[in-house]
Amino acid sequence: MIKGSTRLVAIIGTPIAQVKSPENFNRAFAEMDRDHAMIAMDISSEAVAGFVELARRWDNLDGFVVTIPHKQAVAALADDVTSRVKALGAANVVRREQDGRLVADMVDGLGYLAALQNNGFEPAGKKALLVGSGGAGSAIAYSLCEAGVAELAISEIDVARGEQLAARLREDFPGANISTVCGDIGDYDLVANATPLGMKASDPLPIGRLHIEALKDTALVTDVVTSPEMTPFLEAAKARGLKIQTGPEMARAQLGLLGRHMGVL
Amino acid sequence: MIKGSTRLVAIIGTPIAQVKSPENFNRAFAEMDRDHAMIAMDISSEAVAGFVELARRWDNLDGFVVTIPHKQAVAALADDVTSRVKALGAANVVRREQDGRLVADMVDGLGYLAALQNNGFEPAGKKALLVGSGGAGSAIAYSLCEAGVAELAISEIDVARGEQLAARLREDFPGANISTVCGDIGDYDLVANATPLGMKASDPLPIGRLHIEALKDTALVTDVVTSPEMTPFLEAAKARGLKIQTGPEMARAQLGLLGRHMGVL
Repeated sequence: MIKGSTRLVAIIGTPIAQVKSPENFNRAFAEMDRDHAMIAMDISSEAVAGFVELARRWDNLDGFVVTIPHKQAVAALADDVTSRVKALGAANVVRREQDGRLVADMVDGLGYLAALQNNGFEPAGKKALLVGSGGAGSAIAYSLCEAGVAELAISEIDVARGEQLAARLREDFPGANISTVCGDIGDYDLVANATPLGMKASDPLPIGRLHIEALKDTALVTDVVTSPEMTPFLEAAKARGLKIQTGPEMARAQLGLLGRHMGVL
Repeated sequence: MIKGSTRLVAIIGTPIAQVKSPENFNRAFAEMDRDHAMIAMDISSEAVAGFVELARRWDNLDGFVVTIPHKQAVAALADDVTSRVKALGAANVVRREQDGRLVADMVDGLGYLAALQNNGFEPAGKKALLVGSGGAGSAIAYSLCEAGVAELAISEIDVARGEQLAARLREDFPGANISTVCGDIGDYDLVANATPLGMKASDPLPIGRLHIEALKDTALVTDVVTSPEMTPFLEAAKARGLKIQTGPEMARAQLGLLGRHMGVL
């Protein structure tokens, strides 16, 4: 039960109703008997700068989690950023210091890696296909490279954005084979959707149905979409008999990382 | 439990930890099984304009309650105000329309009157002493005049502010005897504290101890301070054997009025 004394953390994005972080955080706060709560704030892109400015002066706010489509904007607006945020140009969590300074980090990729580990998937030496190179996609790409993938293909409808990410990764990870062209689909050990495709029932699949059919039997298929938990993409992979990893699995793996950055878990 | 889909209302002020509205609203929401929550936001005076601007674009916010010291600022910043807000220059509740427009009302005085009724006190024809003419004080003064008090004395440390309120009330309520000078303390049927005095243990009493001793035996002593529920002022009145009305009693009586204005109760 939220009281006047309750300290807050927020998650900002739009749309926001589908996010699972508030339930996950509030359950954790309740279990720890903490006078903290997470609220979800539906904030449009035009309002993000105003939100960040208010956050500096919002005295019982400890920090906020950032989701689509505000990760790039918050990276640019924060007062301090980690080297990961600098490299990726995106942030997904901000700690509010007592003096109001906002310190941003990006733990999407670390949460994704933790979920892969929970599913027994070791990225080192593997071939990965990543669809989408926005906030979550860039972070996942960066973390997969840090974890030592042999090959990473980035499929991005915004070609310039995909090339930009690939160029940055090639610089930081010269040992990995980074491309923006999908190779033989049957070669990939990991196929990751990092686009919002699947949130709406009318969305197309991130990769075609025939491509899903052509994946190798041992491939792992993952999604960042949290609602629905089972996206049409994951349904199709599961029907094909492949191992899958859902958005909520990644979100749960990320909970501790987010909470620790904000100093509330 | 707050979820991503939870619609929000806020209460803004500083300090904020002492307010009881979140508990009262959240209990009511839980009893009605509504996916709504109230959060308390500690917002400084310099940040109020930024908060109001953000509120217009905060899509899952239905409205907000305003407490000390922001009632005057919000009255000036809202897009639409009721005639009560216009008369008082203060607002304590704002509804957010679907298009983002902010509509302000002031129901402090109505809540105070409802609490008086709950305590069997009928203001018509009575003599009242009001200490403080800020947001809550002005609203209480206005409502007492509407309810037909014969005499209202306004004790205000900021003399110009007290005179200003008295002048406005004399215009709107020519039948009442409005003054800014305390008469014979033993004449008053009602003594109302509408200052924050009593929130801090080190605060002086709103009226002197000798004045409390000199009140008539049938006088009702009321306070707007919600935390502590029993202020030193109310303790002294109670020790003297007088009837009292606490800040939380007024807050509870106001709950429905606030919730209805925001469209959530």
